[in-house]
Amino acid sequence: MPPRGLEGGYAADVTLLDMLTAAVGGQHVLTDPGMRASYEIDWTRRFEGRALAVVRPGSTEEVAGVLLACAEAGARVVPQGGNTGLVGGGVPRRGEVVVSLTRLADVGPVDGAAGEVTVGAGVTLGVLQAQARRAGYAFGVDLGARDSATIGGMIATNAGGINALRYGPMRAQLVGTEAVLADGSTIARLPGLPKDNTGYHLPSLLAGSEGTLAVITRARVRLVPLLAHRAVALLGLQSTDAAASAMASLRRDLPALHAAELFYEGGLSLVLRHTGLERPFRAEHPAYLLVEVADSTNPTDALVAALAEIDAPDAVVASDPNGRHRLWQLRERHTEAINAEGIPHKLDVAVPVARLAEFERRVRSVVSDAAEDARTILYGHIADGNMHVNVLGLAPDDETVDEAVLRLAIELEGSIAAEHGIGVAKARWLEADRGAADVAAMRAIKRALDPDGILNPGVIFPDDRPALTG
Amino acid sequence: MPPRGLEGGYAADVTLLDMLTAAVGGQHVLTDPGMRASYEIDWTRRFEGRALAVVRPGSTEEVAGVLLACAEAGARVVPQGGNTGLVGGGVPRRGEVVVSLTRLADVGPVDGAAGEVTVGAGVTLGVLQAQARRAGYAFGVDLGARDSATIGGMIATNAGGINALRYGPMRAQLVGTEAVLADGSTIARLPGLPKDNTGYHLPSLLAGSEGTLAVITRARVRLVPLLAHRAVALLGLQSTDAAASAMASLRRDLPALHAAELFYEGGLSLVLRHTGLERPFRAEHPAYLLVEVADSTNPTDALVAALAEIDAPDAVVASDPNGRHRLWQLRERHTEAINAEGIPHKLDVAVPVARLAEFERRVRSVVSDAAEDARTILYGHIADGNMHVNVLGLAPDDETVDEAVLRLAIELEGSIAAEHGIGVAKARWLEADRGAADVAAMRAIKRALDPDGILNPGVIFPDDRPALTG
Repeated sequence: MPPRGLEGGYAADVTLLDMLTAAVGGQHVLTDPGMRASYEIDWTRRFEGRALAVVRPGSTEEVAGVLLACAEAGARVVPQGGNTGLVGGGVPRRGEVVVSLTRLADVGPVDGAAGEVTVGAGVTLGVLQAQARRAGYAFGVDLGARDSATIGGMIATNAGGINALRYGPMRAQLVGTEAVLADGSTIARLPGLPKDNTGYHLPSLLAGSEGTLAVITRARVRLVPLLAHRAVALLGLQSTDAAASAMASLRRDLPALHAAELFYEGGLSLVLRHTGLERPFRAEHPAYLLVEVADSTNPTDALVAALAEIDAPDAVVASDPNGRHRLWQLRERHTEAINAEGIPHKLDVAVPVARLAEFERRVRSVVSDAAEDARTILYGHIADGNMHVNVLGLAPDDETVDEAVLRLAIELEGSIAAEHGIGVAKARWLEADRGAADVAAMRAIKRALDPDGILNPGVIFPDDRPALTG
Repeated sequence: MPPRGLEGGYAADVTLLDMLTAAVGGQHVLTDPGMRASYEIDWTRRFEGRALAVVRPGSTEEVAGVLLACAEAGARVVPQGGNTGLVGGGVPRRGEVVVSLTRLADVGPVDGAAGEVTVGAGVTLGVLQAQARRAGYAFGVDLGARDSATIGGMIATNAGGINALRYGPMRAQLVGTEAVLADGSTIARLPGLPKDNTGYHLPSLLAGSEGTLAVITRARVRLVPLLAHRAVALLGLQSTDAAASAMASLRRDLPALHAAELFYEGGLSLVLRHTGLERPFRAEHPAYLLVEVADSTNPTDALVAALAEIDAPDAVVASDPNGRHRLWQLRERHTEAINAEGIPHKLDVAVPVARLAEFERRVRSVVSDAAEDARTILYGHIADGNMHVNVLGLAPDDETVDEAVLRLAIELEGSIAAEHGIGVAKARWLEADRGAADVAAMRAIKRALDPDGILNPGVIFPDDRPALTG
């Protein structure tokens, strides 16, 4: 989306700025273009817009004050966390008020009895993980952007990552949330009640709502055991089907299965070329399955026993930290290797595991058909049917390939947004994927909680405001 | 709630009955009082009412036809599963149409690659568990009513049970749902996508909505490993606090922790008296903690090692099936022992684990203050702070003690409905527990999806229809 000018009228609206200043203090209402700049563009540099102002509330009450002011002025709001999203869900588009939550950085003490902790929306994943570790616990979600991504943003996008097969995504970690609605009222349930059937579960609804229903201000999350013993295996396999079948066998046999990652010879060659890492096996294989088990006692024997059930042409197991790190690098450095070749189009989709092989086969030809010289690098979280499709050699704004890949995912009964959300990037494909009845139900919920459409317009649902001229 | 007569007008409404007959066939529209009877009373015999008719649709399309007919006629609907609820959420109250889902009993094949299965809403938990086992999997939720409780009802009430500390409640098992809205439209997402961030997660919203938002017709659920090796320990302890602290230590140390149950000397004495079971330790202890670990390899050594960290006056470990069964009986036969003493008031509440000890101490005096001769028997799922309060010696319709116990849970920042839901039984305490802003948000969602209030009126939210006369 190209940068756009402000909508007429906003810039002159001194009353709103006065109200925002009254709510959060003048030093936290950023109107200077230079001060606003980093909030107006995402880190992919693909999404950029203009904000009327960036406000940085320091408490839930200040968030409520900001939303009340915006509601009174009829100003639209874009909530923003660590600004690490990939689908443009957190950047301003048309002169909205950006509400940055990073000052809500309170970290509560770990409740050791319950295995829970309450944190502000602006706390980064890394800080939460460190707090959990100090109390002998871990947090169930991990991802690469841990030092920037905030808990509020991760809830809003229902972040997943590599351990979702064991612990579920952010939604599954929520014991409670506090959030401010578009009318400035605060909904909250934070004491920490993992079993609580008192009506609709608002935390689960907010998870994945991408800032369109409320501004999340705090969350209480469950913690999981800190597992000291790990083992990693890499399997060289004939096909996606062989990898899916191996994964299923391991998942049935190993309750300690912690990650299951899929990649291919094309991606591995690229990684080896750019990183200087060594090829893991003498032979090349079409597909690779990387699995990790984590337990409170040494899980290596159990992993080796489970691997004995699998007919893999090549396999290696590592229990020591260096060996595990070497194997993980082959998967983790895909991003870096791809970026070294050019700026990829990155499409995060999922299909039912049973159709992954068909997806893998067809997506390569779908891309070639749409763009002859494009190169497709795939990797993903196989247990979730979650494939990250990276396409090199495309013009940045040409969505022909994106369209073709998303349509293929839809055809295979898949999801156009497995873990990164819809944002603005995929809004125009939402109804094709979900169907009219589901989208109508979602829109009804949106109208119920945000009748004036103040929160994050254009995100999830296509923007129905009149097109801007010029 | 005493039986009530039909609302005027309904009985004469031949047009609606014609439409219902057209939708499901005459043999599945039960209007004869004798045929209706078992659908009009719950198994506690505390909740009873009259239905205009009981309809038994045999497919999702028939459910849609029934709801469309009811919407056109302005008739209210009470969805009913296995009728094993405890809060009156599934029985008719004022001449509604009962929609019994038990004929939706399709059991799909287990998808071994994904570890998932799709079942009809009327499939019982026991049938689902057997289907999973045949494919080498298990289902993550278990409870006593497994041969009657249906998956649809368990989703509607977000059933929890003893393994929720490991796998979460029903909401956490849902990979997708199919449901019919009040206007007869069908929302569905069933292909099985554990990672799917395409807008609001409707399955999570339906879980725990107690039939007030939609009629659930099918569900796709995740399966978990079938764990062949188990060990059980019983600890005799000084206090609730000691039990909570032991549980927390075990939870940190044992990722294979599968259940953690709390009971007290009063309940144990009753169990021993009524069942002839033997006292587990020579000495009596104020509190008992029963824990189970389950793994793919023998977890006994890990359990014993973890117990060594705990300062318990008495402890016993059993790995063999008979020994485990003997220990479990001490907990599981509480219900039967209590029922042998009289008809209890049963209150299902939760408080933060850190406040369980305070709750346990105060609830006994709160009950005595409200009813001098009452006896209080407590047990519960300690890791969830979930306490089942059983009070003997009360008149069936006297809610003085119920009121006192629920108010205490609220005072301690707890939940008045941990795992059985609000139903009609607790609707009048909902706002005291959740607060006005939360309830307003829930009511907005209810209005958005069921604007005419057709689905399960009086459940979750207090009935705002005019009182019946006579």
